[in-house]
Amino acid sequence: MKILVDTLGSDLGALEIVKGALSASKELEYTPVFLGESEFLSSELKNEKNYEIVSANEVIENNEEPAFAVRRKKNSSIAVGATLLKKNEADGMFSCGSTGALLAAGLFIVGRISGIERAAISVFLPAANGHVLLTDCGANMDTKPDMLVQFAIMGESYARLVMGKPEPKVALLNVGAEEGKGNLSVKEAYELLKSRDLNFIGNIEGRDLFSGAADVVVADGFSGNIALKTIEGTATSLMKELKEGILSSYKSKLGALLMKDVLSKVKNRLDYRSVGGAPLLGLNKPLFKGHGSSDERAVHNGILQLGKFIERDVIKNIEEKLSANLGGNNDA
Amino acid sequence: MKILVDTLGSDLGALEIVKGALSASKELEYTPVFLGESEFLSSELKNEKNYEIVSANEVIENNEEPAFAVRRKKNSSIAVGATLLKKNEADGMFSCGSTGALLAAGLFIVGRISGIERAAISVFLPAANGHVLLTDCGANMDTKPDMLVQFAIMGESYARLVMGKPEPKVALLNVGAEEGKGNLSVKEAYELLKSRDLNFIGNIEGRDLFSGAADVVVADGFSGNIALKTIEGTATSLMKELKEGILSSYKSKLGALLMKDVLSKVKNRLDYRSVGGAPLLGLNKPLFKGHGSSDERAVHNGILQLGKFIERDVIKNIEEKLSANLGGNNDA
Repeated sequence: MKILVDTLGSDLGALEIVKGALSASKELEYTPVFLGESEFLSSELKNEKNYEIVSANEVIENNEEPAFAVRRKKNSSIAVGATLLKKNEADGMFSCGSTGALLAAGLFIVGRISGIERAAISVFLPAANGHVLLTDCGANMDTKPDMLVQFAIMGESYARLVMGKPEPKVALLNVGAEEGKGNLSVKEAYELLKSRDLNFIGNIEGRDLFSGAADVVVADGFSGNIALKTIEGTATSLMKELKEGILSSYKSKLGALLMKDVLSKVKNRLDYRSVGGAPLLGLNKPLFKGHGSSDERAVHNGILQLGKFIERDVIKNIEEKLSANLGGNNDA
Repeated sequence: MKILVDTLGSDLGALEIVKGALSASKELEYTPVFLGESEFLSSELKNEKNYEIVSANEVIENNEEPAFAVRRKKNSSIAVGATLLKKNEADGMFSCGSTGALLAAGLFIVGRISGIERAAISVFLPAANGHVLLTDCGANMDTKPDMLVQFAIMGESYARLVMGKPEPKVALLNVGAEEGKGNLSVKEAYELLKSRDLNFIGNIEGRDLFSGAADVVVADGFSGNIALKTIEGTATSLMKELKEGILSSYKSKLGALLMKDVLSKVKNRLDYRSVGGAPLLGLNKPLFKGHGSSDERAVHNGILQLGKFIERDVIKNIEEKLSANLGGNNDA
């Protein structure tokens, strides 16, 4: 197995990426194909054996218009990687660079799975029993109900094959648990989801996202992103409040010292970034987005996930699920 | 000033409502008109002077279809209250009953402000500098961009006149801070908001809801409700995690004891219910929804807010703002 590892565009620099990729190779049999500054990489990797280097010097910044940047910066690590992926010169790609650029390169260079209209960004949230996959988290702002069904099919395959959930419970992000709730698009998606070969458990509210009631939560990219960033805002605000409270007296400082392990566990738990990334589902090659501030451990975890994504052939499974689902239905 | 006080439909029972309303009368000069079981109320109020009782025995439950229940249960406290309000026999109404029923009674019995197409549920979130008003939080699932502008105008008036913000900063809930982000509806609303007489500061992401960057956050009822319930889910999950951690060892139990004040402050801070309620904006009389589990203090606070809502004539101000805004624009 060959995995393209983008060493550019991450907050902590190329070295963390290299270290994470090498450390992952102790658990996953693969050859990392490092994309980035070849001189730096050659020097860092001089004692290693099993690797390749592909030179790519341009970085696509987060503030650039993704589609435009991917077309213009032909020598960017993301564009170079996507082109190699398209040519079947690797089995998957890992990047901590711009999500938008990775998605754009995925759509314009790699291409979509046949029958999938849109690719989705899928993020793991901490739940009572492991993780829940929220999809889409921001790739698609205006979605048709059919697209939500496609997100459900993709998320279900990923949860089953990579996240180890034997029969993933699929739910629709909504404003109420009862059938008939929500906006027109979600109501129609509910009807479509009921009729498909999925373990569809109905609607889920934001207040139950962490309960473990669902393994896959389907949303349009607008409301999925609102939910994701609201989690971040709430958790940050709470931790800030807690920190200020702790610093306000000697008594509470002492208390916090005794509770140190608990506090750091809680802090890590609600940091959805700790899982190490997000698969881009809907593209016809495995692409995995690591968080921009991924450290060695996060890169390690992300690459192991990508390894499973490749090994268990999630894309083929989505294609099969899709044709089985489409077979019984005319409206998709 | 006369305020209709619905004593039915709250989780903690009529007595908490009565106590809160009486306690509020020490700070606000008003006559409470209690709606509910007249025998119970007469007995509880026998030592009081300044009050009225209107008998209303039916309760609309949260699981009833609101519009249907309001029409069918003519003797429900909500329907009776809304009818009195419509007849100008009181200046405002406070209820801890079903939000949907209160909204339906407001729409079908009391009526909307002329020029307002939809009423919005507006909830206070704790922010760095007081509170931020999130509007709409769930009344309207499918909204046109014009409606979002109307929510902005209503929220701005309320924040300025009741929440004491001299020049409220109005923002649009979105997936990114930059102009041009979001779905079609939000993009169009952005353009409309720019051209109105509002202190419009642009988009706000869920991660910045608590920062104090905005005083009024405008959303369609679908995404506003997703944000609101995600805050609740995140805060609950975090507090649960913290509690489990604390109980896991003697050391952390001792730590928590020393941090007791800090922990309870944090818990209260993120409980958006502690503010005591939500104004229903867009109706042509002041209606204020107290949280279902409001205790005496929350009822007290809610009625004081409703008092300001009435005294400062928010509805008239909305009408004026609306006609001023409409004057310069043809597309609303």
